[in-house]
Amino acid sequence: MELKAKMLGLEAGGKFIVVLNREDAEDLSVSSLDRVRIKGRSNEVIAIVNITTKLIEEGTVGIYEEVKNSLDLKEGAIVDVEIAPLPTSVYFIRNKLNRRKLTYEEIHEVIQDVVKGKLSEIEIASFVTALHIFGLDLDEATSFSTAMVETGNVLKINKPVIVDKHSIGGVPGDKTTLLVVPIVAAAGLTIPKSSSRAITSAAGSADRIEVLMPVNLGLEEMQKVVEKTNGCMVWGGNLNLAPADDIFIRVEHPLSIDPLLLPSIMSKKKAVGANLMVLDIPTGRGTKVKTIGDADLLAKDFMELGRRLNIKVQCAVTYGEQPVGHTIGPALEAREALGVLMGEAEVPDLVDKATNIAGILLEMSGKSNGKETALEILRSGKAEKKLREIIEAQGGNPDVKIEDISVGEKTCTVCSRKEGYLLWINNAPLTEVARLAGAPKDKGAGVYLYKKIGDRVKTNEPLLTIHAERDLKLQRALDEIERSEVLGIGERMDMLIHEVRELPVAKSTFTIER
Amino acid sequence: MELKAKMLGLEAGGKFIVVLNREDAEDLSVSSLDRVRIKGRSNEVIAIVNITTKLIEEGTVGIYEEVKNSLDLKEGAIVDVEIAPLPTSVYFIRNKLNRRKLTYEEIHEVIQDVVKGKLSEIEIASFVTALHIFGLDLDEATSFSTAMVETGNVLKINKPVIVDKHSIGGVPGDKTTLLVVPIVAAAGLTIPKSSSRAITSAAGSADRIEVLMPVNLGLEEMQKVVEKTNGCMVWGGNLNLAPADDIFIRVEHPLSIDPLLLPSIMSKKKAVGANLMVLDIPTGRGTKVKTIGDADLLAKDFMELGRRLNIKVQCAVTYGEQPVGHTIGPALEAREALGVLMGEAEVPDLVDKATNIAGILLEMSGKSNGKETALEILRSGKAEKKLREIIEAQGGNPDVKIEDISVGEKTCTVCSRKEGYLLWINNAPLTEVARLAGAPKDKGAGVYLYKKIGDRVKTNEPLLTIHAERDLKLQRALDEIERSEVLGIGERMDMLIHEVRELPVAKSTFTIER
Repeated sequence: MELKAKMLGLEAGGKFIVVLNREDAEDLSVSSLDRVRIKGRSNEVIAIVNITTKLIEEGTVGIYEEVKNSLDLKEGAIVDVEIAPLPTSVYFIRNKLNRRKLTYEEIHEVIQDVVKGKLSEIEIASFVTALHIFGLDLDEATSFSTAMVETGNVLKINKPVIVDKHSIGGVPGDKTTLLVVPIVAAAGLTIPKSSSRAITSAAGSADRIEVLMPVNLGLEEMQKVVEKTNGCMVWGGNLNLAPADDIFIRVEHPLSIDPLLLPSIMSKKKAVGANLMVLDIPTGRGTKVKTIGDADLLAKDFMELGRRLNIKVQCAVTYGEQPVGHTIGPALEAREALGVLMGEAEVPDLVDKATNIAGILLEMSGKSNGKETALEILRSGKAEKKLREIIEAQGGNPDVKIEDISVGEKTCTVCSRKEGYLLWINNAPLTEVARLAGAPKDKGAGVYLYKKIGDRVKTNEPLLTIHAERDLKLQRALDEIERSEVLGIGERMDMLIHEVRELPVAKSTFTIER
Repeated sequence: MELKAKMLGLEAGGKFIVVLNREDAEDLSVSSLDRVRIKGRSNEVIAIVNITTKLIEEGTVGIYEEVKNSLDLKEGAIVDVEIAPLPTSVYFIRNKLNRRKLTYEEIHEVIQDVVKGKLSEIEIASFVTALHIFGLDLDEATSFSTAMVETGNVLKINKPVIVDKHSIGGVPGDKTTLLVVPIVAAAGLTIPKSSSRAITSAAGSADRIEVLMPVNLGLEEMQKVVEKTNGCMVWGGNLNLAPADDIFIRVEHPLSIDPLLLPSIMSKKKAVGANLMVLDIPTGRGTKVKTIGDADLLAKDFMELGRRLNIKVQCAVTYGEQPVGHTIGPALEAREALGVLMGEAEVPDLVDKATNIAGILLEMSGKSNGKETALEILRSGKAEKKLREIIEAQGGNPDVKIEDISVGEKTCTVCSRKEGYLLWINNAPLTEVARLAGAPKDKGAGVYLYKKIGDRVKTNEPLLTIHAERDLKLQRALDEIERSEVLGIGERMDMLIHEVRELPVAKSTFTIER
């Protein structure tokens, strides 16, 4: 059927989509989300069909940008539109909805079609929901990981040992990577670290690293930095490593499910060529993993999957019931990390966590006294030197000083109304306060915590300072502090955690952060 | 945040959707599919957020028609956009993903938000996938049915007994309704029948009825027809009875799942006030329900659910391994049904099925000898008279003759290449042939079958004639006949059903038709 192209001036998130009038759709015998083949002058694409009754007239086809660019179409061009079969991957997805275990070939086909934009959001949403409900067994997790690597770029570094670290996230203010990478690289190991930006947190590793140096590197630039300095700290978004994951996340996030946690992490590690890695599992109330038992089970899954992928994995189950260090928000966190590396700040929990993780990596690669060695590299200034090398290689200012990093100048300090010990910190609303203040978008926004769990607090003593770049956002953050219980102060733990007076609406604290 | 409205000139299928530039979205701290509150001059709506990096500039918000109309916006108007909380129903959906049984109140909230366009396609797709995997228990099926009735219109007919019939579908050429409604209404029972159009079949009941009379009636018109004639045969699409179902179908169809089969059927019956109904379950190879055991299980579920909803249900498990009668396609089917009602055509299987179903309804409402009575009403011409009353009441021509109904004039007859018995008919490709010929859109398109299972066939004897309105479509239908095995002819059944030589891609014969 010949139809006149009407440009919609809209992107479809990488998918090929066209909009048909209901009459034309019925003539073509296609329903919503069926596929059509569209021929332009020189080539053709398969597109997903949306149907409308108004706005796209009979005889016209609405064209999204992806189709326009691929066919090089002009407004009003005549295109030939015919019904096309569904991609085979749709049948594999339907099999999964009916509890079928998928083979490697089937999973590869699905992942490939996800990456090529051949599947609709409804199909992807249904697929990840089924994966969430049924869970992946080890065979499927391996197939997903491998297929996700094969449908993207890979980094090629000519070294026998390549190490990596990853945190499953969930604890605010976790700037461990900013210390671990320079320590490990200074010890002579190769660590090509890629990180993500925040999705629901106040700062992703890429957000905090970006305060110190450019992170939007391409794959070749990343390779040069690693060859020069043994390490790097870049944003994963420009590298196209296991790109299927980014598409899955767009669907998983609004559903608050994360069935591909293992393959998505392991595929990114495999894609940079890692063969030794340590996985940080922050554990406790207010994080993703609530109990040590659950952390051990998750660790087992990662280690098994690693074995299948030829990546030796060890896990660090870490204390996650309060933020790491004193700061939350990109610039505040970058300052804190730089201060520790320069020996100008004492942040015992951050140093303990970073040297433990770096130490595990050192011992996995055959060195002895891992933690002590890591601490020595940190204390001696070698880690700071390595950081500055990496900053320079990535195109930043290697002489950056703490005071060069500006933080939000609109501030407000919250003081304690009573005396006692800081008994608990509630991670989720604290993150929300930092986000409302502007983090991660406003790099200078965030929260500075004066007290950590167990500290003595006097009446009117400062508990935290909120930093923002705009008054309106500062006010919103303050409103949130008023509304929610962020810190608990008392002489001893209250026995009543909270009262349930009416049917609670469960809002999970689970967040997707990779 | 104040943004400039840019009209997209696109509908979002009843949902409130806006498109933000990534920068603005980050400033608002919203991710894709989060919600924002948009204020126009006089009122406000909550809309679902899509995010783009191009085409919608920073400072601009892309507006779909639904939002435009609701806020009465003009191009370039300034609107205030702020983050809004997720609807509570999203949390209920997330609970369902985690295997929670939902209460009536929770289900009502979800259904209401579906109807009001507050949920995204991803959320609805994920929800129906979870329902498909977990299944509904009887409590949930009852809650869904009741909530679906309460979120739509209801028909109010002041009669103590209101009957209805429904087929779960799957067998081509099933024009039973066209006989049952006039028979039952002529017997003095009230039967306010609403039907659907084809989704994946060659003709829905509404499509075939429309050949004889207008079916796009509103609720008040429907009521008047029923009060005048005891019956009606209208399309459900204009009535807004249990409208949630139509929205669920849009998502279920591309996934080829139908978890809400029971509530969607029963809610429509409840909404017209039915208290007696017969459910037709066509059974056999090539239909939805393959075995008599499965049919009995489904019957039990319907009867139990009916009891909860105060609808007495009986089921008719009927033979579904070949089309009902000789015709497939709206006009051909309408001709055949009219011929039987006028006593001018002999179609034994159609008459047997229709009088059995009408007979069950008569006996359920206290009359004796149901089938014989139904046959007598048909043979006596009372049913024809009633049909013509209904046609007149719905605004059609009550004197319509068989030859007034035109069928596709482009025809091609397929003859047998061998001699034997017609051993089997394959429903799915036969439906596909009729659809490729143009049905249901081209009313005159379809297939006329000369032979039914068990009939003797001679070499070169006609097996079927394809009718189409256009040469191109006739050719496509013929190509399909060449490609697929539609009819099996032989002296005795071949023992080999088919060979599986390579990994089969399972394409289910399951179709959503209500």
